[in-house]
Amino acid sequence: MIIDKLIEACVAKQNPTVVGLDTRIEYVPEHIKDFYFADKVDMETACKSILDFNCRIIDAIYDIVPAVKLQMAYYEMYGWYGVKCFNDTAHYAKEKGLMVIGDVKRNDIGATAEAYATAYLGKTFLYEDVAKSAFDVDFITVNPYLGFDGIKPFLDICKLYDKGIFILVKTSNPSAGQIQDVITEGGKTVYQLVAQLVKDWGQDMIGELGYSSVGAVIGATYPQQLLQLRQDMKQTYFLIPGYGAQGGSAKDVINGFDQHGIGAIVNASRSIICAYKSTKWNKAFKPEKFYEAARCEAIDMRNDIATALIMRG
Amino acid sequence: MIIDKLIEACVAKQNPTVVGLDTRIEYVPEHIKDFYFADKVDMETACKSILDFNCRIIDAIYDIVPAVKLQMAYYEMYGWYGVKCFNDTAHYAKEKGLMVIGDVKRNDIGATAEAYATAYLGKTFLYEDVAKSAFDVDFITVNPYLGFDGIKPFLDICKLYDKGIFILVKTSNPSAGQIQDVITEGGKTVYQLVAQLVKDWGQDMIGELGYSSVGAVIGATYPQQLLQLRQDMKQTYFLIPGYGAQGGSAKDVINGFDQHGIGAIVNASRSIICAYKSTKWNKAFKPEKFYEAARCEAIDMRNDIATALIMRG
Repeated sequence: MIIDKLIEACVAKQNPTVVGLDTRIEYVPEHIKDFYFADKVDMETACKSILDFNCRIIDAIYDIVPAVKLQMAYYEMYGWYGVKCFNDTAHYAKEKGLMVIGDVKRNDIGATAEAYATAYLGKTFLYEDVAKSAFDVDFITVNPYLGFDGIKPFLDICKLYDKGIFILVKTSNPSAGQIQDVITEGGKTVYQLVAQLVKDWGQDMIGELGYSSVGAVIGATYPQQLLQLRQDMKQTYFLIPGYGAQGGSAKDVINGFDQHGIGAIVNASRSIICAYKSTKWNKAFKPEKFYEAARCEAIDMRNDIATALIMRG
Repeated sequence: MIIDKLIEACVAKQNPTVVGLDTRIEYVPEHIKDFYFADKVDMETACKSILDFNCRIIDAIYDIVPAVKLQMAYYEMYGWYGVKCFNDTAHYAKEKGLMVIGDVKRNDIGATAEAYATAYLGKTFLYEDVAKSAFDVDFITVNPYLGFDGIKPFLDICKLYDKGIFILVKTSNPSAGQIQDVITEGGKTVYQLVAQLVKDWGQDMIGELGYSSVGAVIGATYPQQLLQLRQDMKQTYFLIPGYGAQGGSAKDVINGFDQHGIGAIVNASRSIICAYKSTKWNKAFKPEKFYEAARCEAIDMRNDIATALIMRG
């Protein structure tokens, strides 16, 4: 099952982290933009710059990280060219042996959720016996606000094509609690109720390593809730955003891991892809070597989390 | 303000309905597919078929309806070609004087929500003084699960570019209540709390006609809740899905309108764009005249709701 492959990739590379390719044109060094913008500045040349940047980052990290996460919002900023760039980046990453998480947070009523599930995780029927993949990623993120019939099509297509989803439970942003932390009649918060639903929904997709292909998104910025949810959701794999630029530390994120040091994957985006701009690395690396800075920062992140896991014992 | 323009368009055409262009390739008549699929069947030729179908529907209804709604899920099924088709359809509709609602249900943390808001409602910075629109729609739908900091970027960009959003409050699907109807500590349901937040968030974007450019999505399939929310949210404009194929009747949807017969716009998708396949119309219209069937059904829908509003008095 796909979740086993993700866990095995983390174990093989001794690295439970995912690099978020949330690339804006502002992050791309001047020498790349100078090349693609030489004739004209438009969505197409911007996306060529971004794809080039992404591929160089992938080349620099594919041997040390198990997966990349592509945040669709940053690609949709460049219109359909950007969506093509999302897909081209995902293909390139898969060719390099990386697993790909599409961070798309899709959600809709049943029939429409089925369309989203087909788009990202299945195959689209075109005509007679012709069906094609629209996007080819391993996992996507999904928003639970519409309840089970907005989730079921994703589960069905995950089973059919051996794919996985991460459902938003407790997000990493400051106002996450405005709805997610509301206390309900029975004394549980909304996110705790969602956590229970996610457990139930994933019950029949549990892999050989004990985790379900139906995972949860739990932000690193709420370490106590992360620890509690790890205890409450023993078979749910966590995608943990919020490390690095958003303020989550290694000490925070390890709350999402079980006693064997598995059960979660931690994302960092800007801190890695923009490492070459940081005060930590900008003296060691010129912008032309942005990918080497990204590699160094990805190694530091891996070591930071590994050390915290060892220290916890 | 954009919400005034939408209300004025509904009043001018005496029609508070929106046609949902949720076009799957299966909906496109054979004669169109035969033409585009003559050489090859792929995502590109599928999207050419869909765009042709959409444009003929728009030609047939633009003088009688104020707006179209494009459900992104059905376009993403065809990959980046589909996303281009979404954009081309939106442009064509705007050229014909229609307002366009992008039903994308986007949601994310603050910085990423800003990227989505920029993509659909703003302009993307490319280089020096070059900024371009990625998609150009008037309104989009947004999911509130992440709370205010995931909403604020949409509000900021709406103010800057005179655009609007519809935030999911009570959706039309059967399991909507699984999270939305949970009773919270104070006795209100989750969707009632979200309704209050939506009211607050829209307070400083109220147009001359008394409604905010920050609207709410409330399903026709929950008519009692729709009636109550109309009373509780006097300045919030409603986008009402669920009429027609999903089971909502004219008697149900009029609960979303105020005493002047404004304050809401009702969506129907399949019942209109697939009218030519229905037992109601398939004797009168051959598949080649699918757009005439769509026009007839759109007129019937307008009259159905107008009659129900008159009967209510």
